[in-house]
Amino acid sequence: MPSIFTKIIKGEIPCYKVAENDDFFAFLDINPNAKGHTLCIPKKEVDKLMDLDEATYMGLMAFSRKVGKAIEQALDCKRVGMTVIGLEVPHVHVHLIPLNNMQDATFQKKVSLTKEEFENIANAIRSKIE
Amino acid sequence: MPSIFTKIIKGEIPCYKVAENDDFFAFLDINPNAKGHTLCIPKKEVDKLMDLDEATYMGLMAFSRKVGKAIEQALDCKRVGMTVIGLEVPHVHVHLIPLNNMQDATFQKKVSLTKEEFENIANAIRSKIE
Repeated sequence: MPSIFTKIIKGEIPCYKVAENDDFFAFLDINPNAKGHTLCIPKKEVDKLMDLDEATYMGLMAFSRKVGKAIEQALDCKRVGMTVIGLEVPHVHVHLIPLNNMQDATFQKKVSLTKEEFENIANAIRSKIE
Repeated sequence: MPSIFTKIIKGEIPCYKVAENDDFFAFLDINPNAKGHTLCIPKKEVDKLMDLDEATYMGLMAFSRKVGKAIEQALDCKRVGMTVIGLEVPHVHVHLIPLNNMQDATFQKKVSLTKEEFENIANAIRSKIE
């Protein structure tokens, strides 16, 4: 069965898309730690980060850098943090999280946003992608 | 003033070293989330991940992959997670954390280890580095 992220890539589940190329896809986390929390994923469905072949791993990291730099430019934060956990959805995903304090990085507290806020954030990040 | 991590690289502060090459250095986190929690750092002292030049960023990610795969082979865990925060020490560091549950990834609970345990873990990881 395809992962929920594969369904998002295919457009079967809606998302707030931030970036896409042939191999990778970025969209806003719908249950964000902070405004602008974004997920970067390979289109190839692999469960664990360390099981990605080297080219896909390096491609994902390069893609995440591009998106992360755009988030830092678009949003008010001290820096963008990066986290890969993956115990919940078996499809590698890099969390890019605008950080203002340690709590933003710990997945303990979530932020509620309206559809309009999500759209504005996605647009702001997209406009900064090189 | 050099960062605490630069002092570790120079041997001015002791550490449990896991790996080193010309540009990068890996050692056990002394206040680990879980057994085997490792930090990978560039020798070049830069504060923010997204401010690393592209070559250093990509080199750090390649180095972290090598160390992460070794941790997965050496230790009992479901997978190795990766986190970059950096709000405390202004010198980029990639946390590689052996994960068995979500708590291992959230920096809320710490594990106490003896000197001998740290040494055994560092040796076990080192023995798996390709």
